[in-house]
Amino acid sequence: MDISKTSRLSLVEQVVAQIESLIQSDKWPVGTRIPPELDLMKQFDVSRNTLREAIRALVHAGLLQTRQGSGTYVSSSSVLGAAFYRHIKKSNLLETLEVRYALEREAARLAAQRRTDEDLEALKACLDECEAALQNDDRKRYAEADIKLHKTIVQAAHNNMLSDLYEHMTEALCASVHNLLEITPDIRVHSQLADAIAGQKPDQAMEAVNQYITGFKDTIHMEDKHEN
Amino acid sequence: MDISKTSRLSLVEQVVAQIESLIQSDKWPVGTRIPPELDLMKQFDVSRNTLREAIRALVHAGLLQTRQGSGTYVSSSSVLGAAFYRHIKKSNLLETLEVRYALEREAARLAAQRRTDEDLEALKACLDECEAALQNDDRKRYAEADIKLHKTIVQAAHNNMLSDLYEHMTEALCASVHNLLEITPDIRVHSQLADAIAGQKPDQAMEAVNQYITGFKDTIHMEDKHEN
Repeated sequence: MDISKTSRLSLVEQVVAQIESLIQSDKWPVGTRIPPELDLMKQFDVSRNTLREAIRALVHAGLLQTRQGSGTYVSSSSVLGAAFYRHIKKSNLLETLEVRYALEREAARLAAQRRTDEDLEALKACLDECEAALQNDDRKRYAEADIKLHKTIVQAAHNNMLSDLYEHMTEALCASVHNLLEITPDIRVHSQLADAIAGQKPDQAMEAVNQYITGFKDTIHMEDKHEN
Repeated sequence: MDISKTSRLSLVEQVVAQIESLIQSDKWPVGTRIPPELDLMKQFDVSRNTLREAIRALVHAGLLQTRQGSGTYVSSSSVLGAAFYRHIKKSNLLETLEVRYALEREAARLAAQRRTDEDLEALKACLDECEAALQNDDRKRYAEADIKLHKTIVQAAHNNMLSDLYEHMTEALCASVHNLLEITPDIRVHSQLADAIAGQKPDQAMEAVNQYITGFKDTIHMEDKHEN
């Protein structure tokens, strides 16, 4: 009996791992409603109980979310992202941003040392997109281009753990702080940052990050005053 | 039937939350073997099925670990710590350290701005302990004092999210990299870091962190060569 219990547990874990990999490979992107129970039982070749237990484990881990009367949806792309999300909901915005800037500063420093020619091309494309959005006064497009610019810099650092953390943190921040997209930093600082990375100057790259941090913090303080 | 399913799920979630809080409040510290099933069923006033499902969810989240024939043990103090642990196992040591240093650098900078007199006293006590350990040539004691010193600096930054992340990352690093404790950094750099924090000099504090990072990376490279 002990053996069947163990193999049942490992069967649940196998289904959990399969669903996790469907989510991580973007076959089930965030927001997707997962297929009906019967289809999944057939797909994974497991019983209803095993499937339900796997889904509950993933709901608990924060990857899936069950909506009353509507089904089960993908709510986060990784356990780490989901853990971050819960953590961010409990933290204040300034605390979260300080952590995010710590990652951005390290990314800028490493990107200045490790960027390839392809990284520089991608960075240039993001900057052009930012400028085009600014000229059209399209704030939504600018905000998206801005997020992409920062992700590109983090990728140029060539540290997978750093990119993963940054990606999950940005995802969780965007999900929990809606007005984050409303804050438009100075585009000149972005150009300075890109120049420092292209010129392989780690100190100047970190200094540029420090500059937009200062600007961002001022904006938050102003908003705090506005609310009081 | 749909209602009973929902309330059963929420009962599982309640037990999960209660166990999480026992672990987080250190009533069940990492390494503890959890009480027998019957005791827990009585304590939480739930059925065997509900309890088992809660425990499986916590095993999946990485907080508990079931050892064949020996029982269930507490394996991590938080979901974020467990998520980090899994991530660190998949990453290489240099990648992980770069992320950790990003957090340490931000912590040093903020500590130089925000440290209280109590923080400085705690920092001085850690430094004294490091020196006493060095004089007695006690590497294990030194390693412990060193970890405590860095935690104290992070706490002096007065950012809960930063301390939580740092704590979980250190826990996960120590669990996955045993020889981490074998590397003894220069104590003079620690004194410089403490002086910069006491003197409220953020740039010098970050510079001191950069110095011991360089030393640490050199050690890793030497070990890599040694292994080849």
